[in-house]
Amino acid sequence: MSPTIGVFDSGFGGLTVLRALVARAPQARFAFIGDTARLPYGSKSRRTIARYAAQSARFLVEEQGAEYLVIACNTASALALDAIQEAVPSSVPVIGVIEPGAQAAQRASKTGDVLVIATDATVHSHAYAAACSALGLRALEKACPLLVPLVEEGWTDPEIQTGAVTAQVLRIYLDELNAEAASLGMNPDTLVLGCTHYPLLKPLIQKAIPEGVRVIDSAESAADKLVMYLCHDQAAPPPPAGETVLRCFATDSVEKFERLGSRFLGRPTGPVDLVDLGG
Amino acid sequence: MSPTIGVFDSGFGGLTVLRALVARAPQARFAFIGDTARLPYGSKSRRTIARYAAQSARFLVEEQGAEYLVIACNTASALALDAIQEAVPSSVPVIGVIEPGAQAAQRASKTGDVLVIATDATVHSHAYAAACSALGLRALEKACPLLVPLVEEGWTDPEIQTGAVTAQVLRIYLDELNAEAASLGMNPDTLVLGCTHYPLLKPLIQKAIPEGVRVIDSAESAADKLVMYLCHDQAAPPPPAGETVLRCFATDSVEKFERLGSRFLGRPTGPVDLVDLGG
Repeated sequence: MSPTIGVFDSGFGGLTVLRALVARAPQARFAFIGDTARLPYGSKSRRTIARYAAQSARFLVEEQGAEYLVIACNTASALALDAIQEAVPSSVPVIGVIEPGAQAAQRASKTGDVLVIATDATVHSHAYAAACSALGLRALEKACPLLVPLVEEGWTDPEIQTGAVTAQVLRIYLDELNAEAASLGMNPDTLVLGCTHYPLLKPLIQKAIPEGVRVIDSAESAADKLVMYLCHDQAAPPPPAGETVLRCFATDSVEKFERLGSRFLGRPTGPVDLVDLGG
Repeated sequence: MSPTIGVFDSGFGGLTVLRALVARAPQARFAFIGDTARLPYGSKSRRTIARYAAQSARFLVEEQGAEYLVIACNTASALALDAIQEAVPSSVPVIGVIEPGAQAAQRASKTGDVLVIATDATVHSHAYAAACSALGLRALEKACPLLVPLVEEGWTDPEIQTGAVTAQVLRIYLDELNAEAASLGMNPDTLVLGCTHYPLLKPLIQKAIPEGVRVIDSAESAADKLVMYLCHDQAAPPPPAGETVLRCFATDSVEKFERLGSRFLGRPTGPVDLVDLGG
């Protein structure tokens, strides 16, 4: 029997994590929920985010039979990982994106100085700074609230006028971040994408940063960590053949989820089911 | 006894309507709720918006004693005015922003051709087009999803670099809208701001449109309509002297509400109380 992996995000961004998970564990069964009726989490408080995230986690474990949980949302990972772990049986491993992202930054950085871009709530939690500091890195975090709406508008193509706006917004944010890093005497060589929407901006980000600065995608790092769990738990049985089994749920408009989701997932989401978490 | 006026928005934008209301009815008592735990409504479905808006409306009437309701949110006015009216006793007049906005456009327009900028949900409801059409106007609507986050970031000052980004975004949206209007043979002379965040962009919008095009702020129009109700209901008693009484409630972080809210209200919000609507 393939394990069931529950994947949770406030919206569509977490589908970039799901994409990385499917690539690494195609034999698993996946249940993804996007709490789209209450997104975005990035501008909300810890108390509210923890309450919402716990409801989604319980749905995945109790109703979808998830044996592993991946919190494919930086904001929920930063502010609610404890609340989520408490909401489900302790036998269910809960994997966030922050710690794997910090570990990947540690492997990539030679100078030990790291920049992190993320949502307001993730930055104010200082979860990345704490995770990096525990690994001996110095991290400077910057909230970039306009990047999520720009990605959701699809203004991501560097070759056209709308992408030029996004490039300009990125330049403003990164100039402020670099100026602050310089004023602190930092010598950063690594940039962590601390939001699951940002991988869609990679071409623009690569153009906006100096050559030699490494870009860390925490979606990839979290997927690697899940694979370590799976290998450890199931060293013996060979992966069964066949298609990846994937079911997607959303708390609001499934049409919008199906339409936007494929951009993040890199393939069609399939039919999406509407769930009511009571909010 | 001064009447109690309940004012509802998904977030802070409705404070531009409250500001217009306070200016016109300083003797009234106001209770404002921003459903900040679940904002923004502009990207959500009709079903979800109606459920959320009805909860806030009941809170204002049942717990705050509101005798009038002003729906200071274009999205909720467009998609949930019926649901709100059904959620409260029929003796409570419910005033939205769409119809007053369309009426103001009718007074302003000589050509009868009107442009409307608004959120995704408001545009997809075609509520402005219907309200304008009922008054003999032709309206063309355009969703501008990036304007709300740009206002919330405070990128509204035309004199600095961040305001230049907003000006560029506005130009892209308005160019697309004007091109579509031209292709339909329209000759628009009026632009309706169909979102309560947009009045903060007025200086940028005035620069981006041809001279002679009138800008309609639906906040002002809705406030005028409330005053008509108040005058009709209370022709006799003179307004009592003294300060405007205002209480603000939010479903998420009251600190953020107090901080951002004053920009929209044009003066401090005073202490904001947290409410749990169960979502």
